[in-house]
Amino acid sequence: MSNSFGKIFNITTYGESHGVGIGVIIDGCPAGVEIDENLLKTEMQRRKPGQSKITTQRKEEDEVEILSGVFEGLTTGTPIALSIRNTNQKSKDYSHIKDSYRPSHADFTYQEKYGVRDYRGGGRSSARETAARVAAGAIAKMYLKKYGIDISAYVSQVGSLKLEKHYLEMDLKLAEENIVRCPDPEMAEKMIQHIDETRKNRDTIGGIVSCVINEVPIGLGEPVFDKLHAVLGQAMLSINAVKGFEYGSGFEGVKMYGSQHNDAFQSEDGKVTTSTNHSGGIQGGISNGQDIYFNVAFKPIATIMNDQESIDKDGNKVTVKGKGRHDPCVVPRAVPIVEAMAALTIADFMLRAKTNKI
Amino acid sequence: MSNSFGKIFNITTYGESHGVGIGVIIDGCPAGVEIDENLLKTEMQRRKPGQSKITTQRKEEDEVEILSGVFEGLTTGTPIALSIRNTNQKSKDYSHIKDSYRPSHADFTYQEKYGVRDYRGGGRSSARETAARVAAGAIAKMYLKKYGIDISAYVSQVGSLKLEKHYLEMDLKLAEENIVRCPDPEMAEKMIQHIDETRKNRDTIGGIVSCVINEVPIGLGEPVFDKLHAVLGQAMLSINAVKGFEYGSGFEGVKMYGSQHNDAFQSEDGKVTTSTNHSGGIQGGISNGQDIYFNVAFKPIATIMNDQESIDKDGNKVTVKGKGRHDPCVVPRAVPIVEAMAALTIADFMLRAKTNKI
Amino acid sequence: MSNSFGKIFNITTYGESHGVGIGVIIDGCPAGVEIDENLLKTEMQRRKPGQSKITTQRKEEDEVEILSGVFEGLTTGTPIALSIRNTNQKSKDYSHIKDSYRPSHADFTYQEKYGVRDYRGGGRSSARETAARVAAGAIAKMYLKKYGIDISAYVSQVGSLKLEKHYLEMDLKLAEENIVRCPDPEMAEKMIQHIDETRKNRDTIGGIVSCVINEVPIGLGEPVFDKLHAVLGQAMLSINAVKGFEYGSGFEGVKMYGSQHNDAFQSEDGKVTTSTNHSGGIQGGISNGQDIYFNVAFKPIATIMNDQESIDKDGNKVTVKGKGRHDPCVVPRAVPIVEAMAALTIADFMLRAKTNKI
Amino acid sequence: MSNSFGKIFNITTYGESHGVGIGVIIDGCPAGVEIDENLLKTEMQRRKPGQSKITTQRKEEDEVEILSGVFEGLTTGTPIALSIRNTNQKSKDYSHIKDSYRPSHADFTYQEKYGVRDYRGGGRSSARETAARVAAGAIAKMYLKKYGIDISAYVSQVGSLKLEKHYLEMDLKLAEENIVRCPDPEMAEKMIQHIDETRKNRDTIGGIVSCVINEVPIGLGEPVFDKLHAVLGQAMLSINAVKGFEYGSGFEGVKMYGSQHNDAFQSEDGKVTTSTNHSGGIQGGISNGQDIYFNVAFKPIATIMNDQESIDKDGNKVTVKGKGRHDPCVVPRAVPIVEAMAALTIADFMLRAKTNKI
Repeated sequence: MSNSFGKIFNITTYGESHGVGIGVIIDGCPAGVEIDENLLKTEMQRRKPGQSKITTQRKEEDEVEILSGVFEGLTTGTPIALSIRNTNQKSKDYSHIKDSYRPSHADFTYQEKYGVRDYRGGGRSSARETAARVAAGAIAKMYLKKYGIDISAYVSQVGSLKLEKHYLEMDLKLAEENIVRCPDPEMAEKMIQHIDETRKNRDTIGGIVSCVINEVPIGLGEPVFDKLHAVLGQAMLSINAVKGFEYGSGFEGVKMYGSQHNDAFQSEDGKVTTSTNHSGGIQGGISNGQDIYFNVAFKPIATIMNDQESIDKDGNKVTVKGKGRHDPCVVPRAVPIVEAMAALTIADFMLRAKTNKI
Repeated sequence: MSNSFGKIFNITTYGESHGVGIGVIIDGCPAGVEIDENLLKTEMQRRKPGQSKITTQRKEEDEVEILSGVFEGLTTGTPIALSIRNTNQKSKDYSHIKDSYRPSHADFTYQEKYGVRDYRGGGRSSARETAARVAAGAIAKMYLKKYGIDISAYVSQVGSLKLEKHYLEMDLKLAEENIVRCPDPEMAEKMIQHIDETRKNRDTIGGIVSCVINEVPIGLGEPVFDKLHAVLGQAMLSINAVKGFEYGSGFEGVKMYGSQHNDAFQSEDGKVTTSTNHSGGIQGGISNGQDIYFNVAFKPIATIMNDQESIDKDGNKVTVKGKGRHDPCVVPRAVPIVEAMAALTIADFMLRAKTNKI
Repeated sequence: MSNSFGKIFNITTYGESHGVGIGVIIDGCPAGVEIDENLLKTEMQRRKPGQSKITTQRKEEDEVEILSGVFEGLTTGTPIALSIRNTNQKSKDYSHIKDSYRPSHADFTYQEKYGVRDYRGGGRSSARETAARVAAGAIAKMYLKKYGIDISAYVSQVGSLKLEKHYLEMDLKLAEENIVRCPDPEMAEKMIQHIDETRKNRDTIGGIVSCVINEVPIGLGEPVFDKLHAVLGQAMLSINAVKGFEYGSGFEGVKMYGSQHNDAFQSEDGKVTTSTNHSGGIQGGISNGQDIYFNVAFKPIATIMNDQESIDKDGNKVTVKGKGRHDPCVVPRAVPIVEAMAALTIADFMLRAKTNKI
Repeated sequence: MSNSFGKIFNITTYGESHGVGIGVIIDGCPAGVEIDENLLKTEMQRRKPGQSKITTQRKEEDEVEILSGVFEGLTTGTPIALSIRNTNQKSKDYSHIKDSYRPSHADFTYQEKYGVRDYRGGGRSSARETAARVAAGAIAKMYLKKYGIDISAYVSQVGSLKLEKHYLEMDLKLAEENIVRCPDPEMAEKMIQHIDETRKNRDTIGGIVSCVINEVPIGLGEPVFDKLHAVLGQAMLSINAVKGFEYGSGFEGVKMYGSQHNDAFQSEDGKVTTSTNHSGGIQGGISNGQDIYFNVAFKPIATIMNDQESIDKDGNKVTVKGKGRHDPCVVPRAVPIVEAMAALTIADFMLRAKTNKI
């Protein structure tokens, strides 16, 4: 009951870091969506490990096989199963943590919750699971493309290096031009250097991914518990290492007065817009047609290359060795994951909105 | 499909600001919970309007009638229906906004989404709906009391007035001693003054509610999409006027290195604890037994007492008059709402956790 | 988690036989449905006790109050709460069964399941709960009316008295002309007499309710677990005292050969029909545009007016006295309940079907 | 939203008859269940085609690969993905029905519902999907084994050949000793002959599968919509070709008087039992500890080997040729499917029941 997301456009993921494979079933994708295998490949490439010097050097090809739900290039309305085989599991790398609890990892909580765990590479708690989300998100993007909805995520902060520019002042597509995925080339350079230094110190660093969604139709989101931003928030907070979510004016907005914060409605050529957008495109939990934008905070990854003191399952002190192949900073690879979760959320609300009126 | 929350301990709310009444059905509360009518009353009192000079002066008694699911003081395992009649609706106050879209309100989005709306007092989009949540949350608290789980929310910021003290340095119970619900009496005084000035300026101001949950058992939360903090996040973001959520180290945590951020495990008398708690009591989405703490950002309320320019449903320019009885700052009354949503979330995960192991 | 039905057009009922009241929240009814208060009243009248000499003589007015979700005669897309106060509870009638388990009632199973139960009148297990379903079903009918969908249930068997006529040979509207709700006046007379004799013998008797749904659009129902007939089956089997469900050729169909059973497709004026309808209007779980028809088997009600031997909660032998006011045969009053559950099921699938295609 | 079953022990199946493969994700199986690979194989063997002269001669090995959720022989509490590759798809066999609607198949309804369909072998509507259910059901059986719960299905009717013996008079395990799966050897012989003759006539015939569940704990099932028998009913009606479901006294029970039908409680050595079991082990929707038994009616399979008149998608008359490899009677192979769906239902309610009481 914990591995599904979405009420109509629904996904269920499975798989462990070092098991046979991972994958996802999409149940509820409408029939008639054109499958773009290139887009699927591109999205997987954006997330995959080993893509640059500032990501883990682990290699996983992450080839996605479509097992069902697609016929002659179109979705059929039946479940779409996507399968990714694990090819590069070095399970013995993990024998040293079989009985140890790595600091700020899920080893301890899984052990206590289930009484048994697949300790290899973090098992189910590994961010490897997000590959399945990105694959499903690619299908959601294909669906949203029909409606012109566009999602652009990018890195806006690494450690204390913060991009102060407003998203409207930048060409967000530039984010894909550099390995840290920041649309400001100058800042990108600094960020890359910062991550690289952190890596050399065998440490990790946090960061923020920002995301903008354009051309969302008016009316997505539900009045009470499933407000559009509430479900977007859950979606983002469900990504590994995320510690915070804010949309529109966010945490800064608390400092404002209502008279400053309110977005004045205006009518342009019969279209209702707002003069400012502190609302972040969502009012009363429902999209108002303006850009939706939000920030997602990622902590520094728990796996560092330096030794750390910890305990084993019997409470004895142990030293957890820093080994394996890991990311010094998660945000560059998190960009497509944020987009995937956004796409899945919007796709679900697009379908829900079809049932609003008689 | 939008008015329910929780997978096992499930609530569904109904009701509009100026309709006959509001209420909630709790489906899935286990049998045998002792009903404490005083607690129910107290929680309603904490949320109700008109409680102090810094809240709206509207009066609503918010008396809760228990219609079902309780027999001889105990829950029976069947749905608990809680009903609150609306007694103080002044519907004609709202005729002026029948066809106008108030800035940063949900008037426009509801109209577009549904084609019809109960415009009186914001209808379903009114924060009046949260009274039903507080009532349901009180039942959840009665259930959690059996396990010693304690939830304390308080105001930690109003506008730019930020309480810098760590929660461990304060007696959180002091929050209930003043009308702004800040556990630091000195800061409370400043906040009250700030809100009062804002009110006099016929304006509104934002703020932050912080929340600490003690004695949460290890093992609550689900691995992937329903991570404990992800569902807590959705719960909080679903509250009216919320713009952001962060837990543990939150947005500040992005600036840290992994070597600083990681919480070292240690064993004390056979109990596993951590030396620091940047994780906010949740690792891999699952509670680890440490305190859970988080912040919820509230924007300034959209209803201000000054006139604002807007448009009507035909796109004509109109002036929205500032009238009615509204809160200058939402956070004092939001404290019990945050607690209620936290209680409902934890209650649900308590029940889910019963099904983890054979 | 057990008191809700429907994935999009979703209802949650609450209430006990002798508590304060019963009711239902409809969440997911689309906006813009015209509320017909007369239809609501009529449906409640058809189900209410005391309506004829062959039903229980208990009186309940079953007045429905609409608390939310309706504004100026139209549904608004927000939850519709319907409340029915209990007015005629004679709780002391039930003190004699406080500790006894009535044969074939739910006293024993509730006690074991929950450890506590509201024993008065069967509490939550009472068929009184179905009044809430009928109220919700009336709203569903108002929605379906827009599409010309018509649902007609009738009594086709009482004890061994079986109506052999095919539904197409009768005017089903005649069912409402007599107190047993059988569209064949001659058979109706026999059935009434049979029930009346049973009543005089202080006994009860079973029966069958048949149901026909006309003008269902093609394409309702989901491929696998939520086949249209599977969910209709659950809906019917969830009604108190139901022991069986069959649709189309049903149990008799097992005796046929495929060459007899198959319904040949034919095209009439561009419309696809079938020459026979053993499929009961559903193929592969999906409506094909032909009439949907099914039978629902009701056992004799467990409450008889003769004394019965049983045990109390301590295992001691007791005599359960036959007292109270009960129906000698449930099927006449079950007719509107069957229709209500059918309407709720079809309404839900109408909304689901909106999400099939891009 | 249509391809999942179960609220806590939840399965989602995918796959088409002639696609790459089929499979299932089990989400919610508790941790610590011992995986018995032999049982998994055995169950698949019982369902697989080509197992005897009275089933289809098509060959599918139906090898199940466990992709996740199992570690060192135990379930880990994370999703269990089971994958079955399609190996014997002869897709060209189906080109003749690409544009034709086979009588009483789902070709027409799928085409209308989705606007696109994988016509090969019925695509998603093929009973091939039930292989995934049997695989998942095997895992459910492993879980139930811990509690001693035993499920025995068998063939009780083929065409008009009806086994009149009560299940208590037979050794149900004998059902697996013959190819028709009837526990009465004499009747089995007749049934086999009947099916064989039907096959020679290039026709098909219907039948009934009966099922008994022993040692079900008291308290499974939910009061209202998710009554144990209601969900069992949905589970059974969701199996391809099923037309009816009855439990306990079933359709015959309608002829009885309450005084005959009621099951008298008695206490034996402190255990509550009933003297008769017309209730079929379920009272008020909740298991009472007695045997649960029910019947499932299967129509004759629509695919017959004789030519049939039909229409194509343009409404033109066509002749659908009888070809391919199909079962003359579905019930022998349906026995393990009925058991699988029963096991999945009971497993789900076992977990739900853990949340009944504080």
